Formats: sequence, structure tokens, C-alpha cells
Amino acid sequence: MDKKANLIENDIPKNWYNILPDLPFEMEPMINPANMKPLTDEEFAGVFPKEMGKQEHSRKQYIPIPEAVRDIYRIWRPSPLIRATRLEKYLGTNAHIYFKWEGVSPPGSHKPNTAVPQAYYHQKEGKTRMTTETGAGQWGSAVAFATGLLGMDATIYMAKLSFTQKPYRKVLMRTWGAECLPSPSNNTSVGRAILKKDPNNIGSLTTAISEALDDAMHHEETGYGIGSLITSVCLHQTVIGLEAQEQFKQTEDYPDTVIGCIGGGSNFAGVSFPFIGEKLRGERPDMKIITCEPMSCPTLTKGIFAYDYGDSEGLTPLIKMTTLGHDFMPPAIHAGGLRLHCKAPIVSKLALNGTIEPRAYHQNEVFEAATTFARTEGFVVAPETAHAVKGVIDEALKFKNTKEKKVILFNASGHGHFDLAAYESYFDGTLVDYEYPFELVQECLCRLPKVE
Amino acid sequence: MDKKANLIENDIPKNWYNILPDLPFEMEPMINPANMKPLTDEEFAGVFPKEMGKQEHSRKQYIPIPEAVRDIYRIWRPSPLIRATRLEKYLGTNAHIYFKWEGVSPPGSHKPNTAVPQAYYHQKEGKTRMTTETGAGQWGSAVAFATGLLGMDATIYMAKLSFTQKPYRKVLMRTWGAECLPSPSNNTSVGRAILKKDPNNIGSLTTAISEALDDAMHHEETGYGIGSLITSVCLHQTVIGLEAQEQFKQTEDYPDTVIGCIGGGSNFAGVSFPFIGEKLRGERPDMKIITCEPMSCPTLTKGIFAYDYGDSEGLTPLIKMTTLGHDFMPPAIHAGGLRLHCKAPIVSKLALNGTIEPRAYHQNEVFEAATTFARTEGFVVAPETAHAVKGVIDEALKFKNTKEKKVILFNASGHGHFDLAAYESYFDGTLVDYEYPFELVQECLCRLPKVE
Repeated sequence: MDKKANLIENDIPKNWYNILPDLPFEMEPMINPANMKPLTDEEFAGVFPKEMGKQEHSRKQYIPIPEAVRDIYRIWRPSPLIRATRLEKYLGTNAHIYFKWEGVSPPGSHKPNTAVPQAYYHQKEGKTRMTTETGAGQWGSAVAFATGLLGMDATIYMAKLSFTQKPYRKVLMRTWGAECLPSPSNNTSVGRAILKKDPNNIGSLTTAISEALDDAMHHEETGYGIGSLITSVCLHQTVIGLEAQEQFKQTEDYPDTVIGCIGGGSNFAGVSFPFIGEKLRGERPDMKIITCEPMSCPTLTKGIFAYDYGDSEGLTPLIKMTTLGHDFMPPAIHAGGLRLHCKAPIVSKLALNGTIEPRAYHQNEVFEAATTFARTEGFVVAPETAHAVKGVIDEALKFKNTKEKKVILFNASGHGHFDLAAYESYFDGTLVDYEYPFELVQECLCRLPKVE
Repeated sequence: MDKKANLIENDIPKNWYNILPDLPFEMEPMINPANMKPLTDEEFAGVFPKEMGKQEHSRKQYIPIPEAVRDIYRIWRPSPLIRATRLEKYLGTNAHIYFKWEGVSPPGSHKPNTAVPQAYYHQKEGKTRMTTETGAGQWGSAVAFATGLLGMDATIYMAKLSFTQKPYRKVLMRTWGAECLPSPSNNTSVGRAILKKDPNNIGSLTTAISEALDDAMHHEETGYGIGSLITSVCLHQTVIGLEAQEQFKQTEDYPDTVIGCIGGGSNFAGVSFPFIGEKLRGERPDMKIITCEPMSCPTLTKGIFAYDYGDSEGLTPLIKMTTLGHDFMPPAIHAGGLRLHCKAPIVSKLALNGTIEPRAYHQNEVFEAATTFARTEGFVVAPETAHAVKGVIDEALKFKNTKEKKVILFNASGHGHFDLAAYESYFDGTLVDYEYPFELVQECLCRLPKVE
């Protein structure tokens, strides 16, 4: 094996890997803002499937993937593990670089790994429709795909900026039978309130989350889909890392560095948690784990660890996590999927305790890395994924003149076929590198909800 | 194996399959229009690589794939063979439906299967730049990808209609380092002449071919890339069918029907030639082979077999093939890659002698089929590929109430990520089903070049 490792479909994992039992710390409960008490399973299951409520705090190391979910996974899984030999050569590095290529899924990213089980659980529990939000469009496309294949309806609220920047995302969702609306919209009371305050609001993941939640709360037949952040979503994504571990058996390598980009944390969790498990259990204590985020939304590198809402309007439970403040509105960068003020609680705590190393990058250096990747490895990745590529290149360049054996794995979370306007801006030299908006963030952090 | 068959990379074919020795007829030579004599190898090699000149009339059954080409193939090959179980269930058919999914290549179609060897041969023979034409953008993207990875320059002439309909195709080509111009352009004498005659000319594959040839003929360091039609290009595409034959060994099935859409004929040739070989050699005499073309450009169903040019301006050699006349301008349908007046000579003759069955479809029924495919199998295919899907569904519906074993294989030649404007028109009900423009075609056929 010198380039690509394949698994046959029977090797799609039968279980997801649950990191909770391996963590060296306890997770703080979600808090119900209505009574400031820990959220009960019943309260959680208002818009989420009950099954995911159980997964949020399960102590089982492995959680079975329903056969109906594996059956849809089979359309594109196992995703290829590819050795980036051309990139290695171009960089002149002695490091071996591998990537899991999640762009092969029909919606084009890792997102269906959790969209499919979420739609499946909702349907099993009697729902016929789903709502969700989407930033860059990857998550909304995944829910449209999953509900389309399962014969459910779906309404996707898409951050207005991305909706305008990527006009074909909504057509893609429509192809699978879903409706896609720009958020803030007039479809929900929350959306109307935002528009009343600021008719020119360009939206963000968080405004869209508020609308999708509001819609689901007001329609009994409707369940809500969440694209990232919570523990059960990170769990579903672990198929990526688990497959990689199997695929590495076909090689003579094993990763000592694992890298992923981070918006809410799910693709990063997906590729890294099975390897972090090995690190935490002491099997591979020297494993290096790196997350890459945008300078313009630098949650892990500049945020604080506190209870906060996951959406801008305070509709979610309070979650203890690293945050820039739920009303922080990140600049209009092209990596829409990374414009989230907060990070998954588990990832937040692993960053706090030093298990993982967060890094932040500017847009232009990120697109430069993505262009290098396209011209060496062929694939044109999403702007989000490009952050991971930048991290990989930085890391690999440290091993230009050493004989030390180094194996880097990263998650190529999605393709950039709907993001070419962003590449065009980069080539035209019109991409802005936003400075870290420190005062804005400080203001937002001052408005964090008080939790005793 | 019930869903997806994988080969590991070492199973990428080492040879292409050459159908010439298996054909029950002789192929007519290309004619040099300057002297009306058969084209010599030297004349052919003016803009094409010498190596491809040899491949045009080789009698060897198998032709080795250069290791450098296989090395790039490994990025996405072997492409998956997927059983369309959900589509089967939706149709209620007893037929087993399989597809080769060529959309996994970085440019998103089967086209790099030949773009890579063409760029490789050109570079080996001293060229540092390539030109080519592109209709829908799939072929241009493939040449941009191949030249980008090999460090060559490239200029791609894109039919103006598609250039406008698909603004992101040019950015994709630019990402790999290539320049993409709308054709007719002011960059070549041929383009300027077309624009002088008709400043609003929307272009077609054939105007773009003329410009790309003109450019290559006037620049010594430049080789020309051809996306379809000629024998060596069909040869390169046979990796598709050869892989499928290997992959079927992992199943309990073997195709008795092979289906592909047809523009120039290369993706159809790629999937079908290895199976047609079995049919011609008498190993599987009942094998049914079907090509699907648009009603608006119905070459195989309505054209005539005669010597004609491959481009609109008469720059190519004269080729004996089925044609609608080289100056036939097909209506502006969305399947830009199928808007070609002529078909590959081998495919033309196999249709003439009844080995393959041509069918023609209207746009709306084709997009209906593609939408069904997206909502069952997940993948959103190109409008070209959608023609094959329509053919598959028609065929599969014949086996709703039989117990007869039927196995259909088709080539899913590319994804539709850059064709969503076409899907939108379909959903909005604004797609026009063009009637077969018989008088226009008759006029064009009257202007066929005279060859003794």
C-alpha cells in the first residue's frame, strides 16, 4: 500500500466510539435556563431524539450503529484514506501525510455521518419532518440528503450571507426534496424579531440555529437536527477515526499527529477521538492532536470556558464550553462552517487540559495552502477543510531535514465545489484577513449568562 | 457484497483494453482535407502526441498504462462500483442495477482517465503547455487538473453558453493553474472570424475545438488535448469497464445490459468496450449495450454515417463517423457535454451494425430520472449522466414482474455540482424539450464534405 487504503463495505464500523469513559475529567451537565437546574433527559428530548439524549451521557465505550444507518453509510463509506505523496514531495518533507477524504459523500462532507442517524432516530420516534440551520451549507445539505433518502420533509435555515454567496446550495437541498430559507427569515418569530432589530442582518450559524429550534418547538411532527457541538454528534462522527485506524493496518504507518479544522468540533472529534482515546488510555501518550480555527473566530485560542448558549437568541440549554459569547458576530469570512462562537464541550475541556493544541489562521494563508493541495493532490477542498491543510503543511515543514519518522493524519472534511467564489476572491487578491476583534469579543463575554 | 465493491489500488488495471482486434469490421482511415489522402502518422502528430498516433491503429489487445499515469489514477481510482439497491426498491424492479461512480475524481467525471495520459505523453514529447475545448466544463476541468499536477500550462476554450451558465467551472480550472476563456473568443483567428460573422454566437463544443486547435497549431510548445471521439481516447477510458469486470468478481452478478450516455462517445466506450469485446468474441453473445443521447442532438438515432469534420470550422481531419453535419448548432440544452454533432467512429460503426442500441431522450424526463436517482441513491449526477440514468430506469421497469435474472451496469460519468442551475430550471418548470430540428439537420447534412 503506497497511496490509497480501502476497506470493503463489511468493514464499516459496527459501533461508534464513545470517548466519555476515557476522559480524565467529568463533564458538566447542561443547564435549563428556565429554572437554572441541570437539564433532564425529558427536557433534552423536546426537539432532539430520545436516543441521542441517552448517548449524551452513556458510559458504554462502544455504541452500536443501527443497521439502517450503516445501510445508508454504505453509499459512500468507508471513505478513502489517501497518502498525500505529491504534497509530501512538493514540501520536501520526510513526514508521511495521510488524509481521510470525506468529500466523497453525496452532500460532499463528513456531515451525513450524523445527519443520517439523527433523521433515522427522529423517524423512529414518530417525526415526519426536520428543521436545522446551516452556515456554509454542508450541514443543511447533509440533512436534506438524509431526510430525502428516508422520505421525510425538511426545512433548512441557511445563514443569509452563505445563502447569497452560494446560490447553488439551496438547489442541491431542493434536489433531495428539502426547502432552504435564508436566515434571518420571516418564517419564525425569532427571525422576525432579529429582522426588526436589524433588517440588514447577514445572519450567522447562531441566528439560523435559533430559527430552526423555534420552528421545531412549534411543530409537533418536527424534530431538530444539530450539526455539531453536542456529545452525541461527536460520537456519530467517530466512524471517521475508527475507519482510519482499520485502514492504517494496511500500511506500515500509524499517525503520531492528528489534525482537523474546527467549527463546532464534530469533524475534528470524528477523526481524533479514537486516537485521543489511545492517548488518554496511555497506549500512545505522545500522540499530538491539533485543531485549526480561523483568526476571525478564534474560540479555542482566545475564548473563555464558561456556561453559554449555543445560539444567538438564547434558545438552547446552557452548555459549559469555550466561547466568545453567544452574541459575537464573526466577520464575513468564507469558511462559513467555522463561524461559530463556541466549541464542543469535550473538545473545549481537552484543549483546556492540554490534550489538544489549538491554532488559528488567517484566510489568505489558508487558501494558499488549499491551492497547494489542489495542485499536488488534486482535490479542491472546502474553505473550512483548508484550515486543516494549513495546519498540516506547517507541521510537515518542521520535518524537512530530519530522519525522524513522522506520520500526520488529517481529516479532509469536505470538497469546495460550492465555495469557488471564495477561491476566486483569493486569486483576485480581494480576500480580507480580519484582525482579531478583541474589543467586540470582550463586550460579548461581559454578557455571558450568569450560572451559579 | 451487497452494496459496494472496492478494489485496492494495486488492482488498478495495468493495461487499457484495445477493442480494434475484436471488431468484425475494418476502420476507415482519417483523411487529410488538404490532399484528400489518408492522414499519415506524422500529420496526426502535429498537435497530438506521437504515442496516441500509434494507439489509433494498434492491433495489440492490451496497451500498457504508463506507471506515471497509474500513479495519478491512484488519487481516485479504482472508482467505486455501487449497487443501486434503493433505486431498485423504489422502481419495484427485479433487475439488479450497478453503477461505476466516476464522480469521485477531483475534476468530478471520467474525463481525467484520458486527460492524464494525454498531458503525460505531451510532456514526455517536449510540450510544456496544452490547449483544449470544453462544452459543459468537465473535460476542461480534467485537462486543468492533469496539467496542474504535471506542472504544465493550459488554456481551455469553453463554449460561451456553458461559460455563462456555469461561472464556477472557470474558477475550478484556475485553482489548478489553468486559464479558461469563453469561446468564440478573440484569442484566435478562428474565434475572431466566428465573432465577426455572428457577435452573439453562443458557442458549442465545435467552435471551441476549432479555437483550441488553432491555438495549438500556432504555438510550438503547445499540444492539443481531445476529450472524446478518437480511438485512443476511447482506449484510455476502458479502465472503467476493466475495473468493473474485476469488481463484479466480488459479487454474484455479471452485467447482461451495459448503459452509458453519449456525447462524443468516450465514457460510453469506457464502460462498454470491455463488455462489447466479450460479446464480439462470442463469450457473451446476448449482452445488450445501450447508448443514451439528447433528442435535441440525436446523432446516433437520426444522423448519417459519412466523412465529416470533428469541429465546426473544418480544422480537424475528415473522419468517417455518424454525424448531423459539422455546422449543426444544437439547441441550448443543459447537457453541454452531449451537444456534439458527431460520434466516435468505432461507436458509430457498432451502432450501424446493431451491436449497440441508441436511444434519445428529452430534457425534462432526463432530469426527472436524475431527481429520482438523487432521492434514492443520494448522488446528484451531471445532466449528461442523467441521460444514462433515464435509460437505466426505462430498462429496469421492464423487469417489474418477472423472475428473470437481469443485471444492469451503467456509468455514472460525473457529478452535477456545477449543473445545479439546470436542476433549478427543471424544478421551476422552465426547461424546454426541444423538438428534433429536422430541417436544420438536413441543411447541415447537405453541406457534408465530399470524399471520393
